[in-house]
Amino acid sequence: MDKIIRALKLARKNKVFVGSVNENDNPNIKAMHVAKRTGIKTYYFVSNNSAIRTKQFKHNNKACIYFNGGLFYKGLLLEGTMEVLNDIENKTNLWKNGMEKTYKNGGINDPDYCVLKFTAENGRYYYKKEVITIDLIK
Amino acid sequence: MDKIIRALKLARKNKVFVGSVNENDNPNIKAMHVAKRTGIKTYYFVSNNSAIRTKQFKHNNKACIYFNGGLFYKGLLLEGTMEVLNDIENKTNLWKNGMEKTYKNGGINDPDYCVLKFTAENGRYYYKKEVITIDLIK
Repeated sequence: MDKIIRALKLARKNKVFVGSVNENDNPNIKAMHVAKRTGIKTYYFVSNNSAIRTKQFKHNNKACIYFNGGLFYKGLLLEGTMEVLNDIENKTNLWKNGMEKTYKNGGINDPDYCVLKFTAENGRYYYKKEVITIDLIK
Repeated sequence: MDKIIRALKLARKNKVFVGSVNENDNPNIKAMHVAKRTGIKTYYFVSNNSAIRTKQFKHNNKACIYFNGGLFYKGLLLEGTMEVLNDIENKTNLWKNGMEKTYKNGGINDPDYCVLKFTAENGRYYYKKEVITIDLIK
């Protein structure tokens, strides 16, 4: 139980490594900033429709996110799917002052501004030599 | 040219995030320690035949490794393939004193001890809002 609590603590980190699968079925990774989260299952990211990763998720929504504990042996992998959202409700939800510097073509209405929503289905917590499987579909 | 040099510097880091694809075609990520490297294209890791990741690579050798610059916007992604090696030459090459504590079933001859060899085919260097593609097949 202690280990599950440690795993959940790791999931509060804002820096996360996002995994996608490209058009050649090759895995890809990029560090991203968690903009918002709901519980342990749902994570939102600010992104661009023109970004390589966004195009990958439009083509193949299978995704993972990985939180690293700083040490090699400590990490939380969540497997699930990534949705690309362009509705004004989600875009408003993640909008913050200063983002107009990035989205110059209309701010919140910039057609390049999009939201990525990750939903976890299961997880694995790595701690030393142990691997603990976490089922999140309930 | 400066940026390529910065990208190559990032590839000298020992901590790397390894991407694989699991049996459900979902991407996976795990932090690993680079045990040895040859130039910018080849990276070796100490691993176990029984590890989830090793089994994934035996089934699907498509892989990536990602070096993070500490900041969100700075990273180097290398795409390529991962081989699982069990020959004594490669195992001897990576063997270090102290590893017998991990591989208790015969040390260097422990049937669980294996070597993962990543060979990069291409790369992308992320720096601020720029993405620089690096071709490594020459």
